[in-house]
Amino acid sequence: MDDRVRRHAEILVDYCTEIRSGDTVLVRAPRPAEDLVVALYERIGERGAHPMTEWLNPRAGRAYARAMDAEDFATKDHALAAMRETDVVILVKASSNAAEGSDVDSAKGRASSRAKQPILQERLETRWVITQHPTPADAQRAELSTEAWADYVYGAIDRDWDGQRERQQRVADALDDADAVRLVSGDDTDLRLSIAGMTTINDGGRENMPGGEVATSPDPGSVEGEIRFDVPLYRHGREIRDVTLVFEEGVVVDHAASHNEVALTSLLETDEGARRVGELGIGMNRGIDQITDNILFDEKMGQTVHLALGCAMEECVPDDRPFNESAVHADVLADVSRDSYIEVDGEVIQRNGAFWFEDEFDETPEPGFGSATGVTDYCP
Amino acid sequence: MDDRVRRHAEILVDYCTEIRSGDTVLVRAPRPAEDLVVALYERIGERGAHPMTEWLNPRAGRAYARAMDAEDFATKDHALAAMRETDVVILVKASSNAAEGSDVDSAKGRASSRAKQPILQERLETRWVITQHPTPADAQRAELSTEAWADYVYGAIDRDWDGQRERQQRVADALDDADAVRLVSGDDTDLRLSIAGMTTINDGGRENMPGGEVATSPDPGSVEGEIRFDVPLYRHGREIRDVTLVFEEGVVVDHAASHNEVALTSLLETDEGARRVGELGIGMNRGIDQITDNILFDEKMGQTVHLALGCAMEECVPDDRPFNESAVHADVLADVSRDSYIEVDGEVIQRNGAFWFEDEFDETPEPGFGSATGVTDYCP
Repeated sequence: MDDRVRRHAEILVDYCTEIRSGDTVLVRAPRPAEDLVVALYERIGERGAHPMTEWLNPRAGRAYARAMDAEDFATKDHALAAMRETDVVILVKASSNAAEGSDVDSAKGRASSRAKQPILQERLETRWVITQHPTPADAQRAELSTEAWADYVYGAIDRDWDGQRERQQRVADALDDADAVRLVSGDDTDLRLSIAGMTTINDGGRENMPGGEVATSPDPGSVEGEIRFDVPLYRHGREIRDVTLVFEEGVVVDHAASHNEVALTSLLETDEGARRVGELGIGMNRGIDQITDNILFDEKMGQTVHLALGCAMEECVPDDRPFNESAVHADVLADVSRDSYIEVDGEVIQRNGAFWFEDEFDETPEPGFGSATGVTDYCP
Repeated sequence: MDDRVRRHAEILVDYCTEIRSGDTVLVRAPRPAEDLVVALYERIGERGAHPMTEWLNPRAGRAYARAMDAEDFATKDHALAAMRETDVVILVKASSNAAEGSDVDSAKGRASSRAKQPILQERLETRWVITQHPTPADAQRAELSTEAWADYVYGAIDRDWDGQRERQQRVADALDDADAVRLVSGDDTDLRLSIAGMTTINDGGRENMPGGEVATSPDPGSVEGEIRFDVPLYRHGREIRDVTLVFEEGVVVDHAASHNEVALTSLLETDEGARRVGELGIGMNRGIDQITDNILFDEKMGQTVHLALGCAMEECVPDDRPFNESAVHADVLADVSRDSYIEVDGEVIQRNGAFWFEDEFDETPEPGFGSATGVTDYCP
């Protein structure tokens, strides 16, 4: 076994989820992640905790969904009961074929998502982490060799997480007491939203490994403007490219995509909350140096910003603030490394990918180039 | 996918467990059984039921057991909670390496078995079935080519189960009201036991697929005499050969094996009940034509008899009869095709593998050759 697999297991068990003697641990993993499951069981055994593994099987899931009537999808009582007795969830992504769901009717995908909602809610009550085990299929999607993809995955995971967390805290502090956020990029993104009263999370690699983002949930009624996302969104095995969304009073009133727009429409139609924003996230993991069409990594990449359509994050929304409910949580991502800025209550906190506390931050940009007040002149 | 895999799934879903709309189904399967899991999900979807799969992973189990302290094994609350909400369990056997547990300390194997006991008890309350998916490693253990092993497995499974069940019922009826059973084979097996008041089960392929045995639980205090088992017993990855047991007042007072005797000793020391007999079974599946060192098949083979050390079968033991409790249930098997007979309340019901209602049954054997009263002259 690759030594990095054992190191990965150590980070997941000891840093991300802090597994202790007696904990019940649910590992949810697909077949290609077997090495990581073995390494996890070894580490979990050393801690005296109690694991079981749910086999995530996209081939079986496809066969099931195609055979089912859409109205027969229901919450699986045994899976829900197990989750209620679970202290720690380690969810491992690792594809044999990321397009396995591509010939499943979207309505069934939505029905399946809705049926899983109570289990997702229970999972959020545990100490959970989502991570990635490298496979050839995921390397292919990233357009990397299998070896280069493994280097990329472990390069993003095996980091100084304490240092990362401290750097992120400066941005989290800036957002925590703020109200108005404005995001401008090129000539097709100008989005305004309110985060007043919301709590910001500093993802230093606890619930996502790799971590490396600062995120909060906006007021779901506050989002106004339009945004273009540079990075494809994957939904039930379909790649949705060049997503553009127009918001009025928090709701998507217009949408477009250059590829698989029908899958985007289907996503937005899942439920009421799927047309609203549940998350605003800012990527800060500089160990991630390229987009690989894998949201777990892409959304952490420095010089990117993402929104999630759908369910808000419980940790971010105090009881007295509006919470966006939805069966989906779909992240879409924009590159903000050029012709871009993020403004918080009128102050630019990031310009062209650099934060105000970083050497690369340009205090006095040319008018019209990443300026908070000028007109952007975007060159595609 | 091999068409026989879909036929196998159909038998498991429609015949063995009669899955209906709304049932919660727990599939417990290892990685090499993926094709069968996919076929099961398709069929379960057609029935409108709700599956989840627990990944049985002997590599992970080994790593866990080696890392754990023996005293830390405990019942997994989340696995128990899931089982309590499960209507149907489909347990699939399929090895990558049947010796995966061979370097795990036996004491930990016992601790693990004890910890699983409450989950096993809950599983027995469901509609459950144990079956086999063919793999190269299991073919190797059977000393067959991969193709021949697959033919053997599906030959035993794809049968006229209604006809099989009727034939077995004649033997079940003979045992149901009986008291004294005597089993004689060669010069090293002469065992007597009482089945008075016990219920006989006709395994026509419901809980085991393949099925094909008639079985009951003896009075755990009644077993007397000695028995030699011809077929190896596998325990935590170890092959235990040529097992001989001597019983007095139901308890094993002497035991021997030509290979891995220490594993046999360890098995017997699991708990009080592991030294007593929990099952007497008579194999009747003539579709199984050779011993393959796989108890799921071997115990069903015509012309064999088996005992299980350990836990009795709930269906066989009425509330007013003694029930043997144990964390183990380990089947050991004897060939009764030659120099053998089974006597029930003084009547020979099987001689040299043939039942009294079969053409091959010899009404008037030579004295000393499979005779109920003569001395056997066993030639090895």
